Amino acid sequence: MSEDAPSRRAPPAVAVVDAKTPGNVGTIARAMKNFGFEDLLLVDPPELDPDGEAYGFAGHAREDVLPNATEVTFDQLVESYHTIGCTAVTNEDDRNHVRFPYSTPADLAERLPTVEAPTALVFGRERVGLTNEELARIDEICSIPASAEYPVLNLGQAATVTLYELRTLTLDPDETQLPDVERVRAPEPLVDRLYEEWERLLDELNHPEEKREKTMRMIRRVYGRADPTEREVNTFLGLLRRAIERPDRK
Amino acid sequence: MSEDAPSRRAPPAVAVVDAKTPGNVGTIARAMKNFGFEDLLLVDPPELDPDGEAYGFAGHAREDVLPNATEVTFDQLVESYHTIGCTAVTNEDDRNHVRFPYSTPADLAERLPTVEAPTALVFGRERVGLTNEELARIDEICSIPASAEYPVLNLGQAATVTLYELRTLTLDPDETQLPDVERVRAPEPLVDRLYEEWERLLDELNHPEEKREKTMRMIRRVYGRADPTEREVNTFLGLLRRAIERPDRK
Repeated sequence: MSEDAPSRRAPPAVAVVDAKTPGNVGTIARAMKNFGFEDLLLVDPPELDPDGEAYGFAGHAREDVLPNATEVTFDQLVESYHTIGCTAVTNEDDRNHVRFPYSTPADLAERLPTVEAPTALVFGRERVGLTNEELARIDEICSIPASAEYPVLNLGQAATVTLYELRTLTLDPDETQLPDVERVRAPEPLVDRLYEEWERLLDELNHPEEKREKTMRMIRRVYGRADPTEREVNTFLGLLRRAIERPDRK
Repeated sequence: MSEDAPSRRAPPAVAVVDAKTPGNVGTIARAMKNFGFEDLLLVDPPELDPDGEAYGFAGHAREDVLPNATEVTFDQLVESYHTIGCTAVTNEDDRNHVRFPYSTPADLAERLPTVEAPTALVFGRERVGLTNEELARIDEICSIPASAEYPVLNLGQAATVTLYELRTLTLDPDETQLPDVERVRAPEPLVDRLYEEWERLLDELNHPEEKREKTMRMIRRVYGRADPTEREVNTFLGLLRRAIERPDRK
């Protein structure tokens, strides 16, 4: 965080309240860097020894997110930010508003881009999370859907899932490491030639007339689901031509 | 995993290849339990001391997922399962198929329910992940979209995100810990009464005629986005009635 007032357009800050384990702070810093978040706010943090677990777990975030973290009080946090408290345990209904209603991280990913206000995602200490007293001072609640049998994620894992879902706030689709698969999907005319080649092969094999339509449909379905690339379709085309012509048999 | 052949309808197994750190195995076991997965397969695992980090990091998964884990060879894994190898680093295009094309975890969540075959999500060792030799033997590639600047997630965090996205394979929506918010959203006629009450208040306050329509639209938008519950709307209705009638002024 810069020393100025938090920007109204910046991606959400990530606040960790009273973490006990330096490794969890490092894990959260790493997830922040993986998903394009920068501002780490620490309330009552454990000691973060540059040779200890926080830096050990932070990966490349040891170079920026972690050393640039800002220590703040809980009061400063709730006064400066629209705060979103993350908890596994919600209230059952609106008889109690401390932990209800909640949004899921996916809900937040849809809604937050339309909000212009400095926002902080707030994660609580290990084991007990954020207390009811803390949650009561927080603006809204976020909860990760998980197994009713055991919904409580580890602190670092909860932050990782939340930041993963909210990556759309920080990363444009072309800012991820992934090349665009759509771009290299085979052009439709080439795929059509593939099906024509299969039809030729069925013909060559004297495949029963009454079964051809059904067989071709199955073939189309298989390739349709596989989204083959141009190179893949060309490979099949070559194989099919050879299967049809059987130059080795001539 | 049971000793029988893997079921064709079971949720995917989770395989961890050559993990070096027991804590990461524990973290993955915990995420499995959080998101409803059961079968943990370990290829060349580190020693998992019941008093060590694997069990320490596993949370409640120390009671079932972790002690029930099965040690398998990589050969057994690729022979028995449709394998999905998770890696942060993909090839750029289809000139090389070892790491291309890829699916994202969200893609898999859509596609896997339509596939009936024993499936395993395969995660590789820390630092280098799955090798090209291993990936070449694996059926398909999964990659988590992340920051191009630093896309490499920690092993435990990568597994957590993947299992989170695939929770829809294991948990019905009513099997999460989260109560249904929709169910308690205020009924529409009650919300309409809320708007009528606001109109009465604007009237009472002599709000300028020409501004009323715009003001009411803004009020509707705010409540519309907030999805208020019945109890919340009733609270507002009570407050508005009192603001209109001002019994204290009579």
